[in-house]
Amino acid sequence: MATGSGEFPQMHPVPGFRLGTACAGIKTPGRKDLVVMELSAAASVAAVFTKNAFCAAPVTVAKQHLESGVPRYLLINTGNANAGTGDSGLANAQQSCQVLANLQSLSAAKVLSTNVLPFSTGVIGEPLPMDKLLAGIPEAVNALDENGWADAAEGILTTDTRPKGSSLQFSLGSSADFLTITGITKGSGMIKPNMATMLGFVATDAQIDPELLHRALHLVTNRSFNRITVDSDTSTNDAVVLAATGASGIAVDESNFDLFVAYLEKVFIELAQSIIRDGEGASKFVGVLVDSAGDSAEALQVAYCIAESPLVKTALAASDANWGRILAAVGRAGVDNLDVSKISISLNGVLIVEQGGRATSYTEQAGEQAMAAEDITIQVSLNRGTAAETVWTTDLTYEYVRINAEYRT
Amino acid sequence: MATGSGEFPQMHPVPGFRLGTACAGIKTPGRKDLVVMELSAAASVAAVFTKNAFCAAPVTVAKQHLESGVPRYLLINTGNANAGTGDSGLANAQQSCQVLANLQSLSAAKVLSTNVLPFSTGVIGEPLPMDKLLAGIPEAVNALDENGWADAAEGILTTDTRPKGSSLQFSLGSSADFLTITGITKGSGMIKPNMATMLGFVATDAQIDPELLHRALHLVTNRSFNRITVDSDTSTNDAVVLAATGASGIAVDESNFDLFVAYLEKVFIELAQSIIRDGEGASKFVGVLVDSAGDSAEALQVAYCIAESPLVKTALAASDANWGRILAAVGRAGVDNLDVSKISISLNGVLIVEQGGRATSYTEQAGEQAMAAEDITIQVSLNRGTAAETVWTTDLTYEYVRINAEYRT
Repeated sequence: MATGSGEFPQMHPVPGFRLGTACAGIKTPGRKDLVVMELSAAASVAAVFTKNAFCAAPVTVAKQHLESGVPRYLLINTGNANAGTGDSGLANAQQSCQVLANLQSLSAAKVLSTNVLPFSTGVIGEPLPMDKLLAGIPEAVNALDENGWADAAEGILTTDTRPKGSSLQFSLGSSADFLTITGITKGSGMIKPNMATMLGFVATDAQIDPELLHRALHLVTNRSFNRITVDSDTSTNDAVVLAATGASGIAVDESNFDLFVAYLEKVFIELAQSIIRDGEGASKFVGVLVDSAGDSAEALQVAYCIAESPLVKTALAASDANWGRILAAVGRAGVDNLDVSKISISLNGVLIVEQGGRATSYTEQAGEQAMAAEDITIQVSLNRGTAAETVWTTDLTYEYVRINAEYRT
Repeated sequence: MATGSGEFPQMHPVPGFRLGTACAGIKTPGRKDLVVMELSAAASVAAVFTKNAFCAAPVTVAKQHLESGVPRYLLINTGNANAGTGDSGLANAQQSCQVLANLQSLSAAKVLSTNVLPFSTGVIGEPLPMDKLLAGIPEAVNALDENGWADAAEGILTTDTRPKGSSLQFSLGSSADFLTITGITKGSGMIKPNMATMLGFVATDAQIDPELLHRALHLVTNRSFNRITVDSDTSTNDAVVLAATGASGIAVDESNFDLFVAYLEKVFIELAQSIIRDGEGASKFVGVLVDSAGDSAEALQVAYCIAESPLVKTALAASDANWGRILAAVGRAGVDNLDVSKISISLNGVLIVEQGGRATSYTEQAGEQAMAAEDITIQVSLNRGTAAETVWTTDLTYEYVRINAEYRT
């Protein structure tokens, strides 16, 4: 199950950024499961990774490689997360970078293994099938193309039911010159990104120095991938990479940074929401908006407490306007000195709770009508401040349980 | 679904404590749904309540009444939680106490409404059907009997599939005189008690002053009801009441307090575990033991992160030894400076993770065999200190989703 049309958008190529995809048979023969991305030599790169203490081997290696310089290649496999695999997992991640570096050094300038960032996604705790992975690298390299986005979007999926992309062309000023931002992401379960998400790759042809690019990435990640939850489980392999090739010749600096970030945020939110739309077993797309909170932290506390409540999520699945469960989740969120008599709650604009109790205008019929929609906004007003935060989530269906009871079989 | 035999134990009556149950038709005609409990005039009472900020009207009223003196009566209904019902909910809770007090004042010494503690459980946000509730009180009062435990255990259930009780007789010393502790509880969903649980009523005939009784209640609650979670949702109506009638003439004081608490803890843990055994949709009974932690708080942090992970819970439902999900939950629990290379994890005694990676001795077959059991213990050793905590939980099944999607219909 999934929500929304799920139509894959037109992907504008980003000059200076090529993608190649192969079927390496890592888990399932014949499916796209290995992706190589190549960045022009002039590119800047910023990346954020999972905060899970049990981070996967490729995350550890990618962080080390980022410290030694600007990467030229990203090497991504699905079907196996290379997580919980100890020292041999680290060695496998390093070896796969070395093999790609050696191959590319034949045809062009010397490439070091530290110029390659590895990424893996899939089942945790199984050794990476190195023979298949290494054998697939040449096929992926041969396919490198600026128009390779759609294949790559398929080549990184796991339990996702559809590829996820977003692409935008815009001008930063009055000039007719335009910039491109194009990105893909994957993720459907084990989704509560913590400073990053389950694999996102975004490229732009803007010219932007690494420090500004990092700042932009952190700003937009905190308004997109870090505001979604399918099942409150932060993955071991989360990573988002943002590359700027500079090929457009258009510079982003302090003068137009905010405008650039606004466009970047649009792409990031679209990608993050596409994960929620394809959340495991999802039949609803749910936005939880908490406003008039004392500060951003307590708004998030309440929003996540609702978004992660199994009782709220099963009520959503049943289109049951069981607002008592929302109220109970607000109450247990742990906000200090919460005055419940000030709280109001609405469902797709239908006021259900006012002054802490059932709204006098509320009817069961209006509640049912609001809940019947595929897209639901739950709005909670705490009426104790000016902060607001939105978190996106799914409902909890039979299908979620089926997918996760059968994932390894 | 549920786990264990679920056999209702023999309930030893507690001298000085009587229970009466009626069918008031509050939600479902013909089912036991109204319980009155009567305490002897000499009794001590201790109680703990939910920390949910949206606490129900009866919780607010019960707390007020406890401040004005020792209660003589407990009045409990199922089928309606009287939560999220505002001022009229408070007035209804007060009126029901008054009606019971008036009725009992006719036959014996004057009873004030403040001598009655009200408790409600059931659906949130609906007005209490006062006519039915009040009409049922005389029937419950007429049934008052020291042997009324089994009927009362049925009269407080909601989505529970079976009544839950525990009863113990023991001697505190060499004396042939023995004490009795008998208690009942209810709860199956919206279970993550915070300082209390979804209704527990325990009585003893020990003679014990109120201060010691409170201390005993807090000690044992923190080792029983405050260590269980079905779905991480703390209810609006949780309450545990412990009454000591003193009818045995045997005094509990500082000299034998620890021994008394040890027996009391046995009853409390049995009651708390009976909730987990009857957790909504449960097919597994799961203990999560985190040992060698830096302190008790971080042991609980890790234990709850595992116990509340939908991915761990669906793997348990499928008897799938998907230990990578346990490892990911430990990693995201937010323990500072966690050295994952020191961690080991076992499943019913089968070592699956050592030094942060798959144990060399582990085989998929041994993992499958361990997971096939109905009772599962997940043991996580952090190897960084001496603290240990155990939390009990259920798996997450289709049945859980069905129950909670259909609860109001």
